[in-house]
Amino acid sequence: MRKFGVAILGLGVVGGGTYEILTEKREFFKKTQGVDITVECVLEKNKDRALSLGIDEARIATSIEEVVTNPNVDCVVEVIGGIEPAKTFVTKALKSGKSVVTSNKELFAKYWHELEAEAKAKDVGLYFEASCVGGVPIIRTLQEGMQANDIKSIKGIINGTTNYILTNMESRGLSYEDALKEGQKLGYAEFNPTADVEGFDSTYKLSILSSLAFNTKIYFENVYREGITNIDKEDIAQGKKMGYTLKLLGIGKKTASGIEVRVHPTFVPSDSMLASVSDSFNAVLLEGDSVGEILLYGRGAGALPTGSAIVSDVIFAARHQTNYYSCFNNTLKGASKTKIVSDFNSKYYISLSVKDAPGVLNKISGAFSKYNVSLKEVSQVSASENEAKIVVTTHSCLESAVKKTLDKLSKLEEVFAVKGCIRIED
Amino acid sequence: MRKFGVAILGLGVVGGGTYEILTEKREFFKKTQGVDITVECVLEKNKDRALSLGIDEARIATSIEEVVTNPNVDCVVEVIGGIEPAKTFVTKALKSGKSVVTSNKELFAKYWHELEAEAKAKDVGLYFEASCVGGVPIIRTLQEGMQANDIKSIKGIINGTTNYILTNMESRGLSYEDALKEGQKLGYAEFNPTADVEGFDSTYKLSILSSLAFNTKIYFENVYREGITNIDKEDIAQGKKMGYTLKLLGIGKKTASGIEVRVHPTFVPSDSMLASVSDSFNAVLLEGDSVGEILLYGRGAGALPTGSAIVSDVIFAARHQTNYYSCFNNTLKGASKTKIVSDFNSKYYISLSVKDAPGVLNKISGAFSKYNVSLKEVSQVSASENEAKIVVTTHSCLESAVKKTLDKLSKLEEVFAVKGCIRIED
Repeated sequence: MRKFGVAILGLGVVGGGTYEILTEKREFFKKTQGVDITVECVLEKNKDRALSLGIDEARIATSIEEVVTNPNVDCVVEVIGGIEPAKTFVTKALKSGKSVVTSNKELFAKYWHELEAEAKAKDVGLYFEASCVGGVPIIRTLQEGMQANDIKSIKGIINGTTNYILTNMESRGLSYEDALKEGQKLGYAEFNPTADVEGFDSTYKLSILSSLAFNTKIYFENVYREGITNIDKEDIAQGKKMGYTLKLLGIGKKTASGIEVRVHPTFVPSDSMLASVSDSFNAVLLEGDSVGEILLYGRGAGALPTGSAIVSDVIFAARHQTNYYSCFNNTLKGASKTKIVSDFNSKYYISLSVKDAPGVLNKISGAFSKYNVSLKEVSQVSASENEAKIVVTTHSCLESAVKKTLDKLSKLEEVFAVKGCIRIED
Repeated sequence: MRKFGVAILGLGVVGGGTYEILTEKREFFKKTQGVDITVECVLEKNKDRALSLGIDEARIATSIEEVVTNPNVDCVVEVIGGIEPAKTFVTKALKSGKSVVTSNKELFAKYWHELEAEAKAKDVGLYFEASCVGGVPIIRTLQEGMQANDIKSIKGIINGTTNYILTNMESRGLSYEDALKEGQKLGYAEFNPTADVEGFDSTYKLSILSSLAFNTKIYFENVYREGITNIDKEDIAQGKKMGYTLKLLGIGKKTASGIEVRVHPTFVPSDSMLASVSDSFNAVLLEGDSVGEILLYGRGAGALPTGSAIVSDVIFAARHQTNYYSCFNNTLKGASKTKIVSDFNSKYYISLSVKDAPGVLNKISGAFSKYNVSLKEVSQVSASENEAKIVVTTHSCLESAVKKTLDKLSKLEEVFAVKGCIRIED
């Protein structure tokens, strides 16, 4: 039976989950996969953490050099997170001829091209299923299940924290702040939630997924980003009445004028599959020209779900002899040649606080028509004393035109405030 | 660039779709997959069909021998369907050292063990992604994405015809007969619909999927089967009122006493992901011990979706050098050692037509309690003259106990008829 030795760098939540799966299921994998996978060593500063997992002291490495010179190690699993020391460690592993499996989306979004060049030079494997959407095999699906397709679009709920917050804002009428606080208490949100709620985490993942989907390098800096911190629960409630559910979507689209890649709060129809993805669950909807729509749904984070993706990569590396790399030009120069559409088309939901007086609606719709923004619906949804709340939905129109319209609106005397501006995807 | 030659056996709907994808996307695959895939020849009795697809006469083979002795053919795609001549052709291809890709669920459900033995003897690949759930990469997910998991259950809507019929019975109140007729008119149902509506098609797929999921041979004859031909639209409407949607589910479960594999009409909660899978769409829900629940959704049939799965296998075969086979004992003897639970536990929905008289409800509930079937709810849902309709839901109980209860009930003078008996999965 083939033997396959693994080193784990970092024993945090995901590292611990990975260690647990690999050791508890060694016999199971021998039986079901025909491979004998052993954890040869771990690298973890906190020795007590390693000992508490039952790891023999002899297997706790004290330096990356010890790991990468260990002849029994075939594959290095990096689950430290962040850029350094992860980047240095992974590079050393690749240079030493070890395959690498990583869950590190930030490292991958920023330095995939550098790491792949190192892997190629040594003809070793580089696997990253766990970097996107946790336990859901989305990378494998893109690489090994959708190859027949020219992929037209990818739309995903690819961040569990924000989905937890938005779900609870809708179902229980919580404010953003209260939903965030609760998420932090329950472990769904970090103490410093910026990477999640401002959409950075989603842009990392979307850049990786859309590069694979569209077979062209899309650097994370080219992904349009808008977080959920300014979302008002009133707009969520109003959207619900109109048949929409709010999600933070990562959207990639191949259009005649180039590729759109954007992360922003988005209203989707309440009866759609994506709308039914609640709490911290994730889902990705892919549209291929042959297969049509495919949806993958599951847990996007957590020790065991992410461990599941890492171990899947380890087994893939152990069973397949081939190491293959991106077919697109995976360099920053390659990224600069990818045509990104920055002024994209979308439908919009816009809510305004206005003076409750005759002729106001007319003035507002005038501002839209000035910039060729075609309206689908305009309605007054509430009124109190002198103030009225107006909600407008538009047909598909250019981002830039909506921006100009909002500028114009906010300067009108009759408009107290533009309260919400949310894109709609049908 | 690696060259990879393909032969297509059969140019029906799926064969035509496969041919179209492979030829129209030859340059696309060179660019995105780094492989040059060519259709070297086709085998199709109807020469006009082949010519109408634009296939050069020189590439239309006249016998299977011509195909399997062609040195440019690396991989034979079988899309004839049925047992013969498909079985003979596939066997000849394997014996000649060609890899095989097939969409043939019946052939695979019945003779997978024989074909795998042939493939092993020659160390060639045998791929069958297209045999289950069309374009949805469920086989790849089980083999290459869920390896870290001890899979606890699989629940799937794996037949598009029946899902089309049930969806339209629910949403539009059609009778089974009318929904079937419409499905036939629109091409969702065959002229002879038996294989679909009686659940045979689903048992083929479930036997393949659950063998992979539970890593043990499950022969299709061991799958419990119940079709949808006796479903009354009134029970669907009543279930809807109670928060359930009716689906023909393929269910596989690993329990302490063995493996349950069954295909039957099933009420699922209307707010569940499976309930939202409508018309001819398919979906499979997998539960792994590490990853938790994963759902895959998409088109289960059609020229291009199924072609997408076939071409995915062709590319997988072209890119990976390794051929590997089932880790379980893939023989009929192996199947005989798999412990199948035949008297399984389930919750039930039962509808009865009874005499509208005092004491009847008491007599009915007495029959249930005689066989230890614990009731969750009993309610009279309608009444006309002397007849009343009673609906009963049960807690989880043994199949055999329900059978005995229904026997007993049907003998009661007060019971005119057992109208419906449908299992519930929460």
